[in-house]
Amino acid sequence: MRIHHECIACAINQCQKIVEMSLTDENSRRDAMLFSLKRASELFSKDSIPAVVGGLLFLDLYEFIGNDDPFREYKRLSNEMAEGLVGHFENSDLKTALKLAIAGNVVDFSTGYNPEKLEEDIRRVLDESLLIDHSDELFEMLKRAGTLLYLVDNCGEIYFDRLFIEKLREEFPDLKIIVAGKAGPIINDATVEDLLEAGFGEIAEVISTGSRLPGTPLDYVSEEFLEVFRSADVVIAKGQANFETLSELNDSRIFFLLKAKCPAIAREIGVPLGSLLCLNLYLR
Amino acid sequence: MRIHHECIACAINQCQKIVEMSLTDENSRRDAMLFSLKRASELFSKDSIPAVVGGLLFLDLYEFIGNDDPFREYKRLSNEMAEGLVGHFENSDLKTALKLAIAGNVVDFSTGYNPEKLEEDIRRVLDESLLIDHSDELFEMLKRAGTLLYLVDNCGEIYFDRLFIEKLREEFPDLKIIVAGKAGPIINDATVEDLLEAGFGEIAEVISTGSRLPGTPLDYVSEEFLEVFRSADVVIAKGQANFETLSELNDSRIFFLLKAKCPAIAREIGVPLGSLLCLNLYLR
Repeated sequence: MRIHHECIACAINQCQKIVEMSLTDENSRRDAMLFSLKRASELFSKDSIPAVVGGLLFLDLYEFIGNDDPFREYKRLSNEMAEGLVGHFENSDLKTALKLAIAGNVVDFSTGYNPEKLEEDIRRVLDESLLIDHSDELFEMLKRAGTLLYLVDNCGEIYFDRLFIEKLREEFPDLKIIVAGKAGPIINDATVEDLLEAGFGEIAEVISTGSRLPGTPLDYVSEEFLEVFRSADVVIAKGQANFETLSELNDSRIFFLLKAKCPAIAREIGVPLGSLLCLNLYLR
Repeated sequence: MRIHHECIACAINQCQKIVEMSLTDENSRRDAMLFSLKRASELFSKDSIPAVVGGLLFLDLYEFIGNDDPFREYKRLSNEMAEGLVGHFENSDLKTALKLAIAGNVVDFSTGYNPEKLEEDIRRVLDESLLIDHSDELFEMLKRAGTLLYLVDNCGEIYFDRLFIEKLREEFPDLKIIVAGKAGPIINDATVEDLLEAGFGEIAEVISTGSRLPGTPLDYVSEEFLEVFRSADVVIAKGQANFETLSELNDSRIFFLLKAKCPAIAREIGVPLGSLLCLNLYLR
């Protein structure tokens, strides 16, 4: 997916949030925003993938402001809240666990989410139905699959991914499950370290994409990751950034699990804003 | 006043609103936002006056998208609503008319206002008191003044300015009142044409600042306007853009009438967000 018109203001607004979380001095904040504006104008072009140019912009801003992980506390709080909540759903069936993994995707700073409302929203999302639902096809493919590559998105959300993966293991005991996190902190994305802290080491193989960029931009990931990606039988890709970076592959193995939280994503997929999706573009 | 950190995202967000009002094709919108980003990065520096660089940016964007007045319909609606409402307040005293002129300043697109809520907000603002109130000093100065220069801000609001000016004429019958509008359309600012349509020609002398830029940037106004500005005994400057462009003069003749609608202005003046002000910086 290439940028839509909203991606530009959205990126600059996210820079402002990063700057406000990291700096208190007004002159420093102003200089950091002027830097963000200049870097954004250099990075963004009509062929840009939003998660890629946004990620490159944020990493440069992190360096400029001297803060390598502005979302540390936000992520800690998201994880804490999600971990406390996920226990209430342990008896869910496989399909409900899949919906919970999508519901967990509402925990996303980048569209202005407040972590305190997590519980309320998770329960509301569970009552909704998926607007596009290729989950039957997903489960059918997993019956015959040897390896599943699971691409996580944000902190907090990963606790619902863990529950879904536990249910997948019960349903498909012979399936090898590999979970990929980011190589280092970027906005509120889950890193390899976050995955290991959340106990993914006990239920799956945990690997790094080899990149700190949001999503799974194949031009930036490591050679090791690319090999795993190429050899997986099925790929579950969580959240908007994974959609943005993988949507053009037209790859029948990829199932996108996400809520269309911004107008650009909703327009790109052709669904109403806020739609819940378990989407295989090849099956559409 | 020079830019604060919020001015950058605010300008880009306003560009997005302009683009969405003017264009429907998604590729054209995206290109216009990329243009805005590039021009903003060229225009904004730490010494920029927000109304000046914002205005220059918007005018370049108008040219890029081929729309010289994207706010035409918004302004028409604002004027229509304000004209309908102002009649309810004709028996106000001078001080109430001054407050109404500030209340009229809530009608401002640039901070996301919806014109339908105008009436409700005007009545709420009238119940508030001015956080800084130099109106006694203003009226005292007007007793001894020969000429008042009145710098208007937005459409809609100008109908409340007209009521205030009528009350000023009753109170100070010998005062010469000159009202200045913009030379051409810029966001929802009132132009000379808007002022004449609203009947200002019958109650005052109407002149142009000689510039389309918001506020009264003395480096961009006409020589004719500068002469009027220099020779006026008292200046009433409405709204945020007039504050931004005139605040550094430290000119004892200028009274700023505004609501501090954005964090940058509130921080600059050192008042809570939303404060109503009749402010002479020299008297503070």
